[in-house]
Amino acid sequence: MSRCRRCAPVPEEVRRAADLLERRWLLQIVYAAHSGATRFNEFRYALDEAIPPRTLAARLAELEQAGVLRRTVVPGARPPRVEYNLTEQGERLSGLLQALREWADASGAPAGEVVITGTSE
Amino acid sequence: MSRCRRCAPVPEEVRRAADLLERRWLLQIVYAAHSGATRFNEFRYALDEAIPPRTLAARLAELEQAGVLRRTVVPGARPPRVEYNLTEQGERLSGLLQALREWADASGAPAGEVVITGTSE
Repeated sequence: MSRCRRCAPVPEEVRRAADLLERRWLLQIVYAAHSGATRFNEFRYALDEAIPPRTLAARLAELEQAGVLRRTVVPGARPPRVEYNLTEQGERLSGLLQALREWADASGAPAGEVVITGTSE
Repeated sequence: MSRCRRCAPVPEEVRRAADLLERRWLLQIVYAAHSGATRFNEFRYALDEAIPPRTLAARLAELEQAGVLRRTVVPGARPPRVEYNLTEQGERLSGLLQALREWADASGAPAGEVVITGTSE
């Protein structure tokens, strides 16, 4: 294994944060939370109902465990109602989401199709 | 399915970009590229050799296909040498990576203990 002459190892904190964010749907769920979604069906709607409900439930639990979302049972609601709200740590992801939005807007259609680079800009 | 009164759907461009970035190791690989890694073993070293080589090869190919990295066979090198360099589109991820770094630094160790639920790839 050759060491890297010109590069630096990815910092441990960055690797831990990336471990959380590199999960299918996760960035989109956090984006939806920053766009106002708080209830399970609101997240589904914000993601165009493309996300499987079990996956959404798992991701919401992971975000709660990671301290990004706070799960609250709304007091006195009938039927019982659960809301997921951004914690302070979750709110601090706004800069990353803004950068994601800017990159997405500038990139056109980056992921799905093959993009021919170096000709359009 | 209740519609969302207070929230907005996640824009299509953002969902496409997230589809790419929400893959295990992917943000870390792009981070390593921005830290100077260009060769296969340099990416491995930057990720502390924790990434399986087959997964790294797959991610590098995905990033090439998405127009984030450009694969080059270095002319005349013996033995043959391949480099992966950031495209213009890949360079534009610097803002997102900076935001990731800032969030990671401010969050301490948020994600390390989170259990990965098996569907993240």
